[in-house]
Amino acid sequence: MGNLVLFIGNKNYSSWSLRPWLALEACGIPFQEVVIPFDFPAGNPRFREISPTGRVPVLHHGDVRVWESLAIIEYAAELFPEAGLWPDDREDRARARSYSMEMLSGFRALRNACPMNIRRPRKAIALADGVMADVARIEQIWQEAIARSGGPFLFGRFTAADAMFAPVVNRFEVYELITDPATLRYMDAVKAHPAFRKWQEAALAEPWIVPEDEA
Amino acid sequence: MGNLVLFIGNKNYSSWSLRPWLALEACGIPFQEVVIPFDFPAGNPRFREISPTGRVPVLHHGDVRVWESLAIIEYAAELFPEAGLWPDDREDRARARSYSMEMLSGFRALRNACPMNIRRPRKAIALADGVMADVARIEQIWQEAIARSGGPFLFGRFTAADAMFAPVVNRFEVYELITDPATLRYMDAVKAHPAFRKWQEAALAEPWIVPEDEA
Repeated sequence: MGNLVLFIGNKNYSSWSLRPWLALEACGIPFQEVVIPFDFPAGNPRFREISPTGRVPVLHHGDVRVWESLAIIEYAAELFPEAGLWPDDREDRARARSYSMEMLSGFRALRNACPMNIRRPRKAIALADGVMADVARIEQIWQEAIARSGGPFLFGRFTAADAMFAPVVNRFEVYELITDPATLRYMDAVKAHPAFRKWQEAALAEPWIVPEDEA
Repeated sequence: MGNLVLFIGNKNYSSWSLRPWLALEACGIPFQEVVIPFDFPAGNPRFREISPTGRVPVLHHGDVRVWESLAIIEYAAELFPEAGLWPDDREDRARARSYSMEMLSGFRALRNACPMNIRRPRKAIALADGVMADVARIEQIWQEAIARSGGPFLFGRFTAADAMFAPVVNRFEVYELITDPATLRYMDAVKAHPAFRKWQEAALAEPWIVPEDEA
């Protein structure tokens, strides 16, 4: 079948690209990355060529196409069971997926008001309705998971669940949304992970500015 | 661990409840159901007691709690691998998950404008922006999957992917959104499935009316 090739958007802005990239990178799964920046006002026409939905991330594996961040993670978890993308314990795995699906389907207020932006200087903004309710639920998830596992990550070691929330770590930091020490401690653990730092360095080196994501 | 107990909302309205219920029922997985109707203006206070998010569906299995429709399906698929909740072929399984994640995270215009409503008489409504783009993508998914599998369901036999789209079959029908014969043929296959009919009969027998879902 050949290599896994993961097509992603700008590392500075593409929160959905970060999720599977970070999961695969942190768990040591070999893959090739291709960055396709959305630096055109109407999107990048190449997205349509590579992706059934016209969106990134999308994984190519030979002729197989897998899209949607969490479906890419599930596919990689099947191909590389020894990589431990999900927790080993069945109940933990179920909780990790429940949390990840909450992230996939929800937290719209936070996502709309506070776009991921790796290079953004820290600065608070006026927050729309619903943002702090999203923040509160995410803090509850993180603290509940770490109370069970002992940390430093949601299920002890770094898993796909941490990858799913990694863009939120950036949002919480650069829009200055958090004061709770336990939440800040988890954010520090994610920011210190070598895979997260590798993404961050690449993001900082990107030349593209996307005005609508500069909140 | 004892029985699987699936807590669901009103069968007439709760599209997220229908998804895991139908997947488990159609694939012959034994479970007990508990209906908790949302017939209070501010929701039903029992939701908070049974669910970590205060929402249904939620699965109880001994002390284990699993929430979010697709996480429930993944948990059941791990417990009952022989039930075939997902397609047997790895590529098909990846596509089934990609489609299912699109449903979980997207199609907001359709979902907001056209609530699932099993007992609703067929009648077209004026459609908000974006609804027909959602309809077009869903028709594309269905026709593409059936072109590959041969039908009658998305991956041949009924799988979790069909369950994820089952509430859309109701929406397409009762808001009269479809004229394409291939799409109508797939909808007929879902509507004729014994598990779908069982849900429908129970929905029609429910006494509760929720005004905000009567579009």
